[in-house]
Amino acid sequence: MKLPGQEDSEVYSAHENGSTGELDSGPGSGPSPDGSSDTEESKDPLLFIQLNELLGWPQALEWRETGRWVLFEEKLEMGGGRWSAPHVPTLALPSLQKLRSLLMEGLVLLDCPAQSLLELVEQVTRVESLSPELRGQLQSLLLQRPQHLIQTTSTRPCWRSAHPREASRGEEALLKEQRQNSLRQKLPPGAEAGAVLAGELGFLAQPLGAFVRLRDPVVLGPITEVPLPSRFFCLLLGPPMLGRSYHEMGRAMAVLLSDPQFQWSVRQASNLDALLAALDAFLEEVTVLPPGRWDPTARIPPPKCLPSQHKRLPLQMQEVKGSSARRYGSPAEDRHSHAPQAPSPELQRMGRKALWYPSDFLDALHPQCFSAVLYIYLATITNAITFGGLLGEATDGAQGVLESFLGTAVAGAAFCLMAGQPLTILSSTGPVLVFERLLFSFSRDYSLDYLPFRLWVGIWVATFCLVLVATEASVLVRYFTRFTEEGFCALISLIFIYDAVGKMLSLTRAYPIQRPGSPAYGCFCQYPDPGGNESQWTRTKPKDRDDILSTDLGLVNASLLPPPECVRLGGRPRGPGCHTVPDIAFFSLLLFLTSFLFAMAFKHVKTSRFFPSVVRKVLSDFSSVLAILLGCGLDAFLGLATPKLTVPREFKPTLPGRDWLVSPFGTNPWWLSVAAALPALLLSILIFMDQQITAVILNRAEYRLRKGAGFHLDLFCVALLMLLTSVLGLPWYVSATVISLAHMDSLRRESRACALGEPPSFLGIREQRLTGLVVFILTGISIFLAPILKFIPMPVLYGIFLYMGVAAISSIQFTKRVQLLLMPAKHQPDLLLLRHVPLSRVHLFTAIQLACLGLLWIVKSTPAAIIFPIMLLGLVGVRKALEWVFSPQELLWLDELMPEKERSTPEKGLEPEYSFSGSDSEDSELMYQPKAPEINISVN
Amino acid sequence: MKLPGQEDSEVYSAHENGSTGELDSGPGSGPSPDGSSDTEESKDPLLFIQLNELLGWPQALEWRETGRWVLFEEKLEMGGGRWSAPHVPTLALPSLQKLRSLLMEGLVLLDCPAQSLLELVEQVTRVESLSPELRGQLQSLLLQRPQHLIQTTSTRPCWRSAHPREASRGEEALLKEQRQNSLRQKLPPGAEAGAVLAGELGFLAQPLGAFVRLRDPVVLGPITEVPLPSRFFCLLLGPPMLGRSYHEMGRAMAVLLSDPQFQWSVRQASNLDALLAALDAFLEEVTVLPPGRWDPTARIPPPKCLPSQHKRLPLQMQEVKGSSARRYGSPAEDRHSHAPQAPSPELQRMGRKALWYPSDFLDALHPQCFSAVLYIYLATITNAITFGGLLGEATDGAQGVLESFLGTAVAGAAFCLMAGQPLTILSSTGPVLVFERLLFSFSRDYSLDYLPFRLWVGIWVATFCLVLVATEASVLVRYFTRFTEEGFCALISLIFIYDAVGKMLSLTRAYPIQRPGSPAYGCFCQYPDPGGNESQWTRTKPKDRDDILSTDLGLVNASLLPPPECVRLGGRPRGPGCHTVPDIAFFSLLLFLTSFLFAMAFKHVKTSRFFPSVVRKVLSDFSSVLAILLGCGLDAFLGLATPKLTVPREFKPTLPGRDWLVSPFGTNPWWLSVAAALPALLLSILIFMDQQITAVILNRAEYRLRKGAGFHLDLFCVALLMLLTSVLGLPWYVSATVISLAHMDSLRRESRACALGEPPSFLGIREQRLTGLVVFILTGISIFLAPILKFIPMPVLYGIFLYMGVAAISSIQFTKRVQLLLMPAKHQPDLLLLRHVPLSRVHLFTAIQLACLGLLWIVKSTPAAIIFPIMLLGLVGVRKALEWVFSPQELLWLDELMPEKERSTPEKGLEPEYSFSGSDSEDSELMYQPKAPEINISVN
Repeated sequence: MKLPGQEDSEVYSAHENGSTGELDSGPGSGPSPDGSSDTEESKDPLLFIQLNELLGWPQALEWRETGRWVLFEEKLEMGGGRWSAPHVPTLALPSLQKLRSLLMEGLVLLDCPAQSLLELVEQVTRVESLSPELRGQLQSLLLQRPQHLIQTTSTRPCWRSAHPREASRGEEALLKEQRQNSLRQKLPPGAEAGAVLAGELGFLAQPLGAFVRLRDPVVLGPITEVPLPSRFFCLLLGPPMLGRSYHEMGRAMAVLLSDPQFQWSVRQASNLDALLAALDAFLEEVTVLPPGRWDPTARIPPPKCLPSQHKRLPLQMQEVKGSSARRYGSPAEDRHSHAPQAPSPELQRMGRKALWYPSDFLDALHPQCFSAVLYIYLATITNAITFGGLLGEATDGAQGVLESFLGTAVAGAAFCLMAGQPLTILSSTGPVLVFERLLFSFSRDYSLDYLPFRLWVGIWVATFCLVLVATEASVLVRYFTRFTEEGFCALISLIFIYDAVGKMLSLTRAYPIQRPGSPAYGCFCQYPDPGGNESQWTRTKPKDRDDILSTDLGLVNASLLPPPECVRLGGRPRGPGCHTVPDIAFFSLLLFLTSFLFAMAFKHVKTSRFFPSVVRKVLSDFSSVLAILLGCGLDAFLGLATPKLTVPREFKPTLPGRDWLVSPFGTNPWWLSVAAALPALLLSILIFMDQQITAVILNRAEYRLRKGAGFHLDLFCVALLMLLTSVLGLPWYVSATVISLAHMDSLRRESRACALGEPPSFLGIREQRLTGLVVFILTGISIFLAPILKFIPMPVLYGIFLYMGVAAISSIQFTKRVQLLLMPAKHQPDLLLLRHVPLSRVHLFTAIQLACLGLLWIVKSTPAAIIFPIMLLGLVGVRKALEWVFSPQELLWLDELMPEKERSTPEKGLEPEYSFSGSDSEDSELMYQPKAPEINISVN
Repeated sequence: MKLPGQEDSEVYSAHENGSTGELDSGPGSGPSPDGSSDTEESKDPLLFIQLNELLGWPQALEWRETGRWVLFEEKLEMGGGRWSAPHVPTLALPSLQKLRSLLMEGLVLLDCPAQSLLELVEQVTRVESLSPELRGQLQSLLLQRPQHLIQTTSTRPCWRSAHPREASRGEEALLKEQRQNSLRQKLPPGAEAGAVLAGELGFLAQPLGAFVRLRDPVVLGPITEVPLPSRFFCLLLGPPMLGRSYHEMGRAMAVLLSDPQFQWSVRQASNLDALLAALDAFLEEVTVLPPGRWDPTARIPPPKCLPSQHKRLPLQMQEVKGSSARRYGSPAEDRHSHAPQAPSPELQRMGRKALWYPSDFLDALHPQCFSAVLYIYLATITNAITFGGLLGEATDGAQGVLESFLGTAVAGAAFCLMAGQPLTILSSTGPVLVFERLLFSFSRDYSLDYLPFRLWVGIWVATFCLVLVATEASVLVRYFTRFTEEGFCALISLIFIYDAVGKMLSLTRAYPIQRPGSPAYGCFCQYPDPGGNESQWTRTKPKDRDDILSTDLGLVNASLLPPPECVRLGGRPRGPGCHTVPDIAFFSLLLFLTSFLFAMAFKHVKTSRFFPSVVRKVLSDFSSVLAILLGCGLDAFLGLATPKLTVPREFKPTLPGRDWLVSPFGTNPWWLSVAAALPALLLSILIFMDQQITAVILNRAEYRLRKGAGFHLDLFCVALLMLLTSVLGLPWYVSATVISLAHMDSLRRESRACALGEPPSFLGIREQRLTGLVVFILTGISIFLAPILKFIPMPVLYGIFLYMGVAAISSIQFTKRVQLLLMPAKHQPDLLLLRHVPLSRVHLFTAIQLACLGLLWIVKSTPAAIIFPIMLLGLVGVRKALEWVFSPQELLWLDELMPEKERSTPEKGLEPEYSFSGSDSEDSELMYQPKAPEINISVN
């Protein structure tokens, strides 16, 4: 088949193509072909492809949109009248081959100058084999308006009934509907369309294939469901055949066009051969599933992240792309670069933060920041309440909820104003809480005056930290590999879990359960002076009460009134049963379990199918808040006398009779101020580890922070705040991983092109100081929430505490490896590390970690508990010693490599990784993709 | 490349192939190619394919097994030293094309007569292009023993180190290891092997390809890891190339051989062209995934059931297969045939059961029957305990646990001996329990003597049922479509859930929670005769007790002893607090939640990754038993006075003072025996529905029962047992769906070929009477378990009851559709019905069902509750009326089609289904596969 003027049209195919400059930025589509989703970089338009199928031959011919593609395929479900979920398209090989031969024989117009549908239709029907009559028939058929299933923004699908007899409806109505189409809003500005028209047409004697690349993209009227300018147009018609061959060919064409590399090649193609070569290159790369083991009609859901297309790009494109890929690091680099390598550039540059300072406030002018403030504010006060309650118990009221609120507000706000990384949220953290508890029991055991002693500890810690800053010791953080991080996190999480359960059980001692035959039975009310108060007693005695003691036994000075009423009437409750409050123990247990289980359940709502994603996100993000509210509601509903949170009624320290300023010595001997250096050393280790590990995680390359980190400056700020809080007797604060990550997550900038199954791509974080500052100002104001806070039952807080511990320990890889111990080999998940390290070696590594953890736990349970920070530091030594047991390759997969001692060539550590992982072509690249950090050290 | 004597070897290729007769039974492999897993039918050997790869060029050449296939692929994970999980193999298209050209140029020996590896190696190396020296080198290389990763039965993987220098180790050791290989045990007898050898060999100038089909399968020594006779041998060697080309070609060859149709064609092939045609036919059928949207290294887990291969078979094979496919019904037929069509043949043939009677006992002689007996026995007594406890409460002790055990044993054993379908397990069921409760409250409201009244109801029910049997009314069961089944099941499940929660809450009224200011406070112990018993009192008074009443107040006739001790000492507890037992309410709630949640959790252990599958199956199968044991343990540990199950101490009726034989009138007027016909009519409807719906489910075609059903005979038995149990005042029994299904499931006969990811194929059920009989004899003996049963707390039973209700209601499609109401359209699962019916119509259907359910609930809550069986029957009418609202196509997807009124052409009902579903080529056939029944009517 040959177009009379085909030579003419091929003249267009030079690169005079007026669009958006392919050579600068590589092939089309917003989600860039190298998989790193740098939509900002690629200027090429996204391609929306639509398949219109000719149905109803021979009776009532009509075009209907039966498929659409951007990244994935959506099929029209005719019976269901809806679009299928986006899925990975699957093709039959013959349909690709048939398409190839149809294109080979058909008409190919590259850079066709048509300016409207009419012109285009005239061009593609100028085929020798068609008689003028047939040509007219075909042209009117092609101009017929197709039926679209348009999902308008009101979510109710409606059939765009576009029957010929209704074609008289104005074009405006159509355009209006096209614009209201919810799909339109999802496609980024500048997107182009590709239309594929396929079907069986009885009056054709032989197949008719045409492929058109328009020189200038043109809106082809009603052909596409969205009014996008079309760049590609493909016509595949022919006499009826067995099966749905033209439908399948049309799908094959659409899938080809949706492939970034094919698209790029076709945009460059100058003739038919280049087009066919692009198709052949596509065929070289396809994955083939054998027929007997795979049902071709099964739909594969879109993968979590797309495979890297980098290898597939032609050389000239790789060069263009190289710069951006190098800037962000390829996915494979990301995995290895975060801990030992990432800090190195960040640790050098400091002091340049001042340049960003004005923008740190201007960048916050975005509505997203409001919701971030609300979310982080609620998380912060939940933290303040929980840690405040626990600190109050741990220190016998030396710190309490009021101090927690005040300290959080003061320290957090100051940090947000001064710090190098203002996205960090300061909070009480698990390790510091554990240490403070140990410090308090130490000082109680030796009868020390706690707050003055603590003041000196704080002074020394601040000093040590300043020394660390001065000596730039933050570079030591390189030696904290995942082994150390996991040991740290696991120990703290276990302490949380153990404490939560222990505190809960201690309630059953405070409120004993009454077993049958329990001695705590029987209580009566006795009046101290039988004669004197008799008149008052008889006057106030409730007449309606069956008071057997006074009526039957003739006792005037005793009754069976319940203790509170007895006390109110001036009596004295007597008997072994007076001090027991029944039902509290089990009800507390119920509250504890309720708040724990509901917090877990709310957290997991995010991955459920129910409710719109906004609702799920809210439920999941506010899981602790909601669980606390639920527990409080249950408690208030039953009105039992459960133990509640202690909150001072006025703005004064929780501990009665102390000033805001802690006296420097109190009743302690003077030399204690020197001796405090010893525990301060331990606390400094803890604070250094906690602060810096969090900082490393927050500044990982995958978050694409532009304004840089400030490891030294942040530690400096923490040290100063340490001093301030010690003087005021407030809790100590360091960076909290989870809450800071939540802060960053709520400030993500994402591309909007999330149509058709593609996950939105990540652009960066709104780096600014304002959200944090507002959060802490609000926290400060919340000090006056005391009248509400006093209704929170303690068992609810213990439940949240348990939830935090469980959530933290389940997030680390160590836990996954412990689970492997319980799984038969054939049921184990397909973890990358299991592909590379023998199972016995994995188990050995896990066992060593378990042994270290056991040892830490034993130390924690002895009187020497206070030295546990040193033991934590000892993990670094253990990790170093493991290099004699495991090969570097094994350690690379199980942990990370430690930096070389010499530090002569900082990049050297990377080389062995690449030589290992590079050799293994079998590994899924999906598993290298940046993922959420695995460590929740601070146990939000 | 041309073998000198190739003509000779092609002479072999006639069909003198002495193996197991392909023409009779179609192509190879135990799991038959039509997907219906009729391993019994197909006599063709299963093919185990192994890829040995030549590694280490040029230094140390060695063969290593790097992949193996039966149905799915297992890859060797070199680093991990283990086999990957079985997965769907994926290939690159070029490797298939390269393989094709290598085969085309290479050596193809069909029906090669080689009898050993040595002969085979000589044959394949007789290639012109090889110099004698090279040929010798190649031959010794091919005879070299490969390294296998053998997983011995002791599960510890070990490398079959077979280095040349160790080759001196005796062949016996090798053979022993080959035999110990755990894979060997999984492959069925008669399986054959295919060996693919691939790799790069530097001294070859050009590629060397050879494909051999051996005339007689021969054990090729150490080449395969299992000592199976090899049928196919393929050699793919060549000079080093870029990439792992030969590895990929070897994989392609192995995948081809693992395809049933290719295998069949190659077994028939008489020359190279036939082989290439088979490869091309394979290529025609492959599914293609585009490169940009799918990571080729991702591993696809094996699908739950394989796609039907029926369409792919050549015509001559389809004819052979046709008979078996027709007998069992194709998967697509199964879906539609069960309710309206299935009973028809079964209902006709009766009375032929006697022929099977002797085999009904002989077929039970299999060890599997022992475990079936244990499992069903535990399930039966759990049911007897639960329903006994609940019936006892519902009828104020007119029936109890003892009656439940006795009745279950008598009725169950009698049914197993007489019934048409002895796999059925009789049990108390939810509907009957609900009705009995209504009947009891009715007779209490009108002060009737319950048991005599019930006797007459039973007599009438038996009469009605016999009439139904005589009129062959069981054919009416055709009108019970899924709509009716689901309405029935949902109502009963909701009643279960409502009752369980209600009974739990009623415990909090029986054991009130003591709020602050609650009046129930104070209790003391008073002695009736102050003077008379004083000596005894002072003698027994515990001295160590702080008895303020007697010492401080000088009361000699009162103390603060707890009530039980007081009663024991002859005193009388007095005061408002004496009757409250604290802590019981919340502890009961805890027990309730514990047993419910643990039963749910144990049930779901089956799908977890942890523990070996045997352990998971036990935990899941015995979930109720384990949850009850756990609850009892918790209760015993704390030793609180929770309400326990009432069990009589001796073998006599639970109701004091009644005979085993119920008197025919008692205190009731004579006319009540006539009036009882009215409730009996209602109960008959209920029993008919419950019994027959269960029978239909149990006799579905997918269970492949050989001995036929007995709808009428079973109803006849139920009627007779109804009479017996009414006379003895025992509970009434009908078939219980879930427990009967569990019984059948525990008697499944399955093929053992479950290697490499293939689910074992189902062969049928051990149909016999003995297991049921033994179960009920054991249940009868368990009447003497009373001393143990009295420790079971009632809240635990309520928890199990709730679990049953929740499990039953979550198993029906209706629940899935209700969940759809809460899901945004884009998150809905890809249900087949959603592909065919618009969402709004689905929601409308669900809403109508919800409305019916609401109406039933309202009726159930009014005094007219007892007529609810009629309302259930009314569902059939509602379903009929729905034919005006929904099109037949919609009803086909949402429900089933009802039989035509005329019943002139019984097959007519089928036609519209096929015309609808046949037109839709997009549907996954996977979804038509036989699946577990969706209805749990009897609420096990």
